[in-house]
Amino acid sequence: MIRTPEDYVNSLKALKTPIWAFGEKIEDIPDHPLFKPHVNAIAKTYELALEPEREDLMNTVSHLTGETISRFNHIHQSREDLLKKVKMLRMINQQTACCIQRCAGMDALNATYTVTYEIDQKHGTSYHEKFKEFLKMLQRENLVTIGAMTDVKGDRSKKPSEQSDPDMFVHVVEERDDGIIVRGAKAHLTGVTGAHQVLVFPTENMSEGDKDYAVVFSVPVNTKGITYIFGRQTNDTRKMEEGEMDKGNPQYAMVGGECIAIFDDVFVPWENVYMYKEYEYAGLFVERFATAHRQNYGACKGGIADVLMGATYNIVNYNGVGKASHIRDKFVEMIHLTETLYSGSIACSSEGHPTASGAYVPDTMMANATKLNTTRFVYEIGRISHDICGGLLATMPSEKDYRHSELGSLIDKYLKGVDGVSTEQRMRMFRLVESLTGGTAVVEAMHGAGPPQAQRIMMLRGANLPMKGKLADSIAGVKDEEKTSQ
Amino acid sequence: MIRTPEDYVNSLKALKTPIWAFGEKIEDIPDHPLFKPHVNAIAKTYELALEPEREDLMNTVSHLTGETISRFNHIHQSREDLLKKVKMLRMINQQTACCIQRCAGMDALNATYTVTYEIDQKHGTSYHEKFKEFLKMLQRENLVTIGAMTDVKGDRSKKPSEQSDPDMFVHVVEERDDGIIVRGAKAHLTGVTGAHQVLVFPTENMSEGDKDYAVVFSVPVNTKGITYIFGRQTNDTRKMEEGEMDKGNPQYAMVGGECIAIFDDVFVPWENVYMYKEYEYAGLFVERFATAHRQNYGACKGGIADVLMGATYNIVNYNGVGKASHIRDKFVEMIHLTETLYSGSIACSSEGHPTASGAYVPDTMMANATKLNTTRFVYEIGRISHDICGGLLATMPSEKDYRHSELGSLIDKYLKGVDGVSTEQRMRMFRLVESLTGGTAVVEAMHGAGPPQAQRIMMLRGANLPMKGKLADSIAGVKDEEKTSQ
Amino acid sequence: MIRTPEDYVNSLKALKTPIWAFGEKIEDIPDHPLFKPHVNAIAKTYELALEPEREDLMNTVSHLTGETISRFNHIHQSREDLLKKVKMLRMINQQTACCIQRCAGMDALNATYTVTYEIDQKHGTSYHEKFKEFLKMLQRENLVTIGAMTDVKGDRSKKPSEQSDPDMFVHVVEERDDGIIVRGAKAHLTGVTGAHQVLVFPTENMSEGDKDYAVVFSVPVNTKGITYIFGRQTNDTRKMEEGEMDKGNPQYAMVGGECIAIFDDVFVPWENVYMYKEYEYAGLFVERFATAHRQNYGACKGGIADVLMGATYNIVNYNGVGKASHIRDKFVEMIHLTETLYSGSIACSSEGHPTASGAYVPDTMMANATKLNTTRFVYEIGRISHDICGGLLATMPSEKDYRHSELGSLIDKYLKGVDGVSTEQRMRMFRLVESLTGGTAVVEAMHGAGPPQAQRIMMLRGANLPMKGKLADSIAGVKDEEKTSQ
Amino acid sequence: MIRTPEDYVNSLKALKTPIWAFGEKIEDIPDHPLFKPHVNAIAKTYELALEPEREDLMNTVSHLTGETISRFNHIHQSREDLLKKVKMLRMINQQTACCIQRCAGMDALNATYTVTYEIDQKHGTSYHEKFKEFLKMLQRENLVTIGAMTDVKGDRSKKPSEQSDPDMFVHVVEERDDGIIVRGAKAHLTGVTGAHQVLVFPTENMSEGDKDYAVVFSVPVNTKGITYIFGRQTNDTRKMEEGEMDKGNPQYAMVGGECIAIFDDVFVPWENVYMYKEYEYAGLFVERFATAHRQNYGACKGGIADVLMGATYNIVNYNGVGKASHIRDKFVEMIHLTETLYSGSIACSSEGHPTASGAYVPDTMMANATKLNTTRFVYEIGRISHDICGGLLATMPSEKDYRHSELGSLIDKYLKGVDGVSTEQRMRMFRLVESLTGGTAVVEAMHGAGPPQAQRIMMLRGANLPMKGKLADSIAGVKDEEKTSQ
Repeated sequence: MIRTPEDYVNSLKALKTPIWAFGEKIEDIPDHPLFKPHVNAIAKTYELALEPEREDLMNTVSHLTGETISRFNHIHQSREDLLKKVKMLRMINQQTACCIQRCAGMDALNATYTVTYEIDQKHGTSYHEKFKEFLKMLQRENLVTIGAMTDVKGDRSKKPSEQSDPDMFVHVVEERDDGIIVRGAKAHLTGVTGAHQVLVFPTENMSEGDKDYAVVFSVPVNTKGITYIFGRQTNDTRKMEEGEMDKGNPQYAMVGGECIAIFDDVFVPWENVYMYKEYEYAGLFVERFATAHRQNYGACKGGIADVLMGATYNIVNYNGVGKASHIRDKFVEMIHLTETLYSGSIACSSEGHPTASGAYVPDTMMANATKLNTTRFVYEIGRISHDICGGLLATMPSEKDYRHSELGSLIDKYLKGVDGVSTEQRMRMFRLVESLTGGTAVVEAMHGAGPPQAQRIMMLRGANLPMKGKLADSIAGVKDEEKTSQ
Repeated sequence: MIRTPEDYVNSLKALKTPIWAFGEKIEDIPDHPLFKPHVNAIAKTYELALEPEREDLMNTVSHLTGETISRFNHIHQSREDLLKKVKMLRMINQQTACCIQRCAGMDALNATYTVTYEIDQKHGTSYHEKFKEFLKMLQRENLVTIGAMTDVKGDRSKKPSEQSDPDMFVHVVEERDDGIIVRGAKAHLTGVTGAHQVLVFPTENMSEGDKDYAVVFSVPVNTKGITYIFGRQTNDTRKMEEGEMDKGNPQYAMVGGECIAIFDDVFVPWENVYMYKEYEYAGLFVERFATAHRQNYGACKGGIADVLMGATYNIVNYNGVGKASHIRDKFVEMIHLTETLYSGSIACSSEGHPTASGAYVPDTMMANATKLNTTRFVYEIGRISHDICGGLLATMPSEKDYRHSELGSLIDKYLKGVDGVSTEQRMRMFRLVESLTGGTAVVEAMHGAGPPQAQRIMMLRGANLPMKGKLADSIAGVKDEEKTSQ
Repeated sequence: MIRTPEDYVNSLKALKTPIWAFGEKIEDIPDHPLFKPHVNAIAKTYELALEPEREDLMNTVSHLTGETISRFNHIHQSREDLLKKVKMLRMINQQTACCIQRCAGMDALNATYTVTYEIDQKHGTSYHEKFKEFLKMLQRENLVTIGAMTDVKGDRSKKPSEQSDPDMFVHVVEERDDGIIVRGAKAHLTGVTGAHQVLVFPTENMSEGDKDYAVVFSVPVNTKGITYIFGRQTNDTRKMEEGEMDKGNPQYAMVGGECIAIFDDVFVPWENVYMYKEYEYAGLFVERFATAHRQNYGACKGGIADVLMGATYNIVNYNGVGKASHIRDKFVEMIHLTETLYSGSIACSSEGHPTASGAYVPDTMMANATKLNTTRFVYEIGRISHDICGGLLATMPSEKDYRHSELGSLIDKYLKGVDGVSTEQRMRMFRLVESLTGGTAVVEAMHGAGPPQAQRIMMLRGANLPMKGKLADSIAGVKDEEKTSQ
Repeated sequence: MIRTPEDYVNSLKALKTPIWAFGEKIEDIPDHPLFKPHVNAIAKTYELALEPEREDLMNTVSHLTGETISRFNHIHQSREDLLKKVKMLRMINQQTACCIQRCAGMDALNATYTVTYEIDQKHGTSYHEKFKEFLKMLQRENLVTIGAMTDVKGDRSKKPSEQSDPDMFVHVVEERDDGIIVRGAKAHLTGVTGAHQVLVFPTENMSEGDKDYAVVFSVPVNTKGITYIFGRQTNDTRKMEEGEMDKGNPQYAMVGGECIAIFDDVFVPWENVYMYKEYEYAGLFVERFATAHRQNYGACKGGIADVLMGATYNIVNYNGVGKASHIRDKFVEMIHLTETLYSGSIACSSEGHPTASGAYVPDTMMANATKLNTTRFVYEIGRISHDICGGLLATMPSEKDYRHSELGSLIDKYLKGVDGVSTEQRMRMFRLVESLTGGTAVVEAMHGAGPPQAQRIMMLRGANLPMKGKLADSIAGVKDEEKTSQ
């Protein structure tokens, strides 16, 4: 059982999950400079769980076993649980300014818990019991699970079974006595560098023809047959450069460390299969997961925005313009956007409701509104920060120049701001803003938990416009009999 | 004690509060066409309180007497109370598409309850007990109270005591054994046409020089010496025209029926004075009231937006374009803005906290963010509705033309939309959209509960940017010793 | 020939065009309080044309006759003409803050001039010559022509010939030796109260089945068989109230005085028929007219925005807050939006090009971008003005109250702003802002010259995305041979 | 004299300008992978100037010598010149999707030309003649000049002479018979890798105390005593990686290759000093340069936006979703924003006016509005592109993985889109979008030509609000005599 950050890092070393990056197969994940910042961010969640004043947010009691467990392995039993989840996310991200990497797993666990219950109720299957066993193991061992949802999809205008290559969506290629063989690839997998288990589930609604694609299962991350290829991130190679400054956030990562996971005829024992062929539940899996995941974005991005505002605040003070009224006004705008984001996460949690299984899920409409705001506000907050930080954000010399015997003193002299602040400090702060606002970091806010259009479809579906039309009829004095032409 | 809508209307008739409009003094408020729509909207709150399925939202139990009372006269005892408040507001506005007019009173009661408690604790005064007596009377009699906050202010660059005319802010001009004499004027008073009592309190922070202006009191609306002059509203005289159609919302009003109230040496007995001279609490009154009031806007405007979306939905269907993808997309945007507004009201309620008096208040930051969003989104929702309704919104003939023997059939023929929908129905729906989106209606969303700048100041004050700066220091690896220049 | 404003008003009196409003048939247009503000605005164009320093913008030389004519009756012969057109529009609107009402006519004349030329070239018809005769008469007599485009359309999902009522689009119901008989109705007709002639043309692309709907013609406004019904405007009845203050803009109107025009078997002589049955040119008529009309919006709304900014500037100074930095910042935003609008009008004029007829037309893409910005910015400029003016905008007493012997002095005392500014002046300024920003005024900016979707379609059509895709190929190093799958 | 791209590259080799990057002093600029993409972009301007169909935009006739010269070395003699300038910029950027790097120099030349003329007129100096000689040399030799404006500024709340370190702004530290010695540093220098000459001028208004800082001069880039340190850019080290794909735009750069230039007691002969001590003209230098530079942004960023739209268009087609209506709608938005940007550049050129020297300058108000729009729209266009491209934008494997013997075929299989499009082509297109929208690229749009606040100040200054207030007075019927309190 993992207790401390050290336990956690050791557990990863034991796994030896191979991950490809830059054409190399890397197995010493926690020690590799490309992956370490990601591992550090998850290790921080273990560290915070040991701090008395964070404990209430980080840990809770398992409804299955009565034991104290990590909230990341918890099935939400109340609105309070939903609220604590998002408060935990904002708090952690204020400490790391980095994707938590554990929420997709948590959300996948909750989705699987609620949907397997409903499948079993309808079909008399036993997915839910099998899943509870898996869950108890996770809680007991205090493991990290990640979710794998988005298939690579090929031609997006076609359903899984219509693709010219049948492997564009993960599917079962063989049934065996002891389990199934799956093939396909999942994109945008978050957190694999720090995970123990991966939970795989469908990416969209399915119809009968896609039956073989309707499969949900878990496997250990280091299972034979899975190839992980790490995605490039903005300025990724800076992590491998000497020095701290140019990294911006030297200890933690920028995003979730997304990769593509290719399942090349991977074996999954039956006990870890939580749905197979019940295609009519594929959409519900997506909806439950997506709603839970969209719930988070106002909180986790809110936490990162807190750090971004802090770095920006430091910079304007270093520049000597912290009191200018137009700058204060722009801070208000950043605050406003951040708190509107967070309000969404709080609201959809507060308005959560129980499912058939007893587990609570957030309000779908509000969770989608929260995520849709994220796809706009994170860009806008970054834009405002760029506005008031100044152009140096994009033209500053490298740390190597700064450390150079000849150049260093020139840079020190000429890139100084107000008296009393070191040039290094000022440069570090610019680099932090840079790392929080450019490229991969903002795309994550756009596409994590699904693209804007996915949120829009859910919102239109839930809005009940015909009912609203009737409210208008009543107020405008339109009687039913008038509704036929005179 | 008022129980039914009829009781309520009778109670207003008994008051005979005189209100000036168009140079006339009107005393038969509930029967006058200019005021009736406002009275109807409040009467609706009495009606809804009698409906079994609304009861839980509309009524609650008094923490003072244990009796069932209207929620509008309730002091919030929990987060649940705060949540029910905003749910009630959205629900009512879905029925009336009109300002509720009772929330400013409710918020003023709650503010006075909490602040008087704190004044008494510090100064050993007995304002809180006096106020509780007043409150019990309101609860028992089931009365409507309105709040009066905004002074007319004269030159806004000057404090009350610096104005060239000392009456630009309400103040005490004489102390007597049995009470005080007050003079001044309050602007933007909402709901006077349907009120029994008015609660008066300061509009801004005060310093010692403004002591005489630091006064809080209640009086019956029909108290001698108060002159109410009703403000003009967009298309106000349509209410006095024959027919229903051109009114848009023929039964209810558009806004709160704002007026200016001039206090010309009005006597207030000591038992109804809840603060006097404790100038250092003026700001807290404003903050408590404003926070409570800003909490509402995502809910009440959300309810009106529901009706607006409904009317717009009807129109695009009457036009035969309901299925066009760009129109559906614009609906999503309206839904999204509406639900973001409402999420704010829910979130600040969910994050409410108790004050010293035990009463709960919403989260200040989130309540302000909610209101600030309102000042933008209500305009934008209206703009989108205009976009998809079409130009007829602004060029349709009058009902008189439509009822004219000769013209009526021409209009009927030429302003028809799809088959199966009467022209009258279509025209009514356009008029409803017109009344919900033009002029006074949107200005209310801008300035009700204070102008945007007031929200911005509160948000900047609450954001703790220096703490956020420290988070950034820690993440960027800036050590304390580096903070002095090298 | 009309020379002075007085000549102009007399010419209207002679016409006795009957217009219905509020169920009454009104023939004394220039004297009726409902119509007079519209007539005044056009009369102002005659007045400005006599001022030496405006002459260059207001007048020009006819390319047909060499005579000096009003620019409103001119066919643009150069980019300079296009530029002067929009400069004229902004200048006039700065004087009247009111729809000019003459630009739709001017644009219809230009569209008809260019398209008839092209029809004749293809079909050997003589529409262009007939039209030139009509045009010369207009130039010589110095008359006002209005355009009539938008049919009432019935079910918008159907083409003209598919409607259940064939009269939903104007069409020819009978051909006679001396002319044609037309039936149908045109909505949103601007400027009829001040017009001499109306030019009628189609509202959309047509196909062969709609041949009888493909008709363009002119008639005097007072032609037998046309019924005009005046549309309601926001606060329209204030124009008929005593006093000036509550009107906001007491001399001029708010919008174009839109009406619906019903053509009930109206006879048109052949000499005034400029297209009939050449359905394939219906779309070109719309495009030419719409482009010319969209060209204007940045200029005419820019001129109104100038007045709105001016009124807002006065108010914040009356309030004593003119120097507050957040207020100055909001002015910058209004200025920025206004100048962006105007830049669009200038740019599409500067990039104009000649047609086959030799007449110049503005750049289609930029004209559409200009109009689309108008549908957003006019709302936003109004919203910002509301923000900084304050709530009195929506709660001020009526002029009748202000003129009342008893109330007047109370209002004078309590609605005063800074010293040195009369209360009346302050109230007038609020009313001006109110009239410029509410209801009908903004809907005009949305739907005049076609709804946003019409602009969007034109822009997508003109953007040549495949060519842009090729630019990207070349830059990304994608070779043609790679474009087939490996 | 440079004629061909090859001549140009050779001229750079001859200069051997040393530029520092990553702690190394690099002298083989045109061959170094970090700098080559920047050189290529300027070389392209020489190439385009030789193409017959581009010639008219790229070249013009010198008003000084009558010889055919590069437009980049031209002093604008008409509105037509101003228009051709911006058309040239959009055209070039469509070819390179990269900062042109030559416009700041062109704008500095034009600013110096006009301001020296005015200084000479007032002070009887001979700066203008000296400058014309310099200019003739540039035109004759066909050289590249860059501008150096932004000082490093230290504490931004202080003027140059108030800084604790007097070198925070470039200033004269010694006057000699043959010239001056200057010290200080200029930030954000664009284009040094491809330049021959640098023109240095002040960054802000100055007062008498800052006299020694009021200096304008030119020097060859390789002048002794200047240290250039190259700024880090987003993903800069990808330029030094093997392969083309991950660069996105393999041939050209992303931004201008900004550097800091430190002037460590650099000697400038008197003949290249174009202002010295005439501090009252420092502000005019800034205004003339800034206006000319802001004129460009709608055009150059418009050209880049064209390529971005093209790449996005390719991607959505590769994804199989090119026909989805929400995607088409988002393209319209990108088109609209792009054309609004470009309209600004056209409009301020079309409204240009001559200065005392006879040279034309663009309209200040509109040029500032154009740049301010750029600081918003470039971010928004990027955001929309991210929206519709999909998450792969941020999670795609490296080219090294793709070229790997084992992984390559897996990536080829699983990252394929629709049939008929190679995976490599799809990946290249994602990388192009990535490089055009992340980090440095957008910050350039924010801060190039000055931060938003600089534009706002200029716009407020030019708006003449008091005049607009008078327009409102006249329309609201406020007479002058009313303006004193009644």
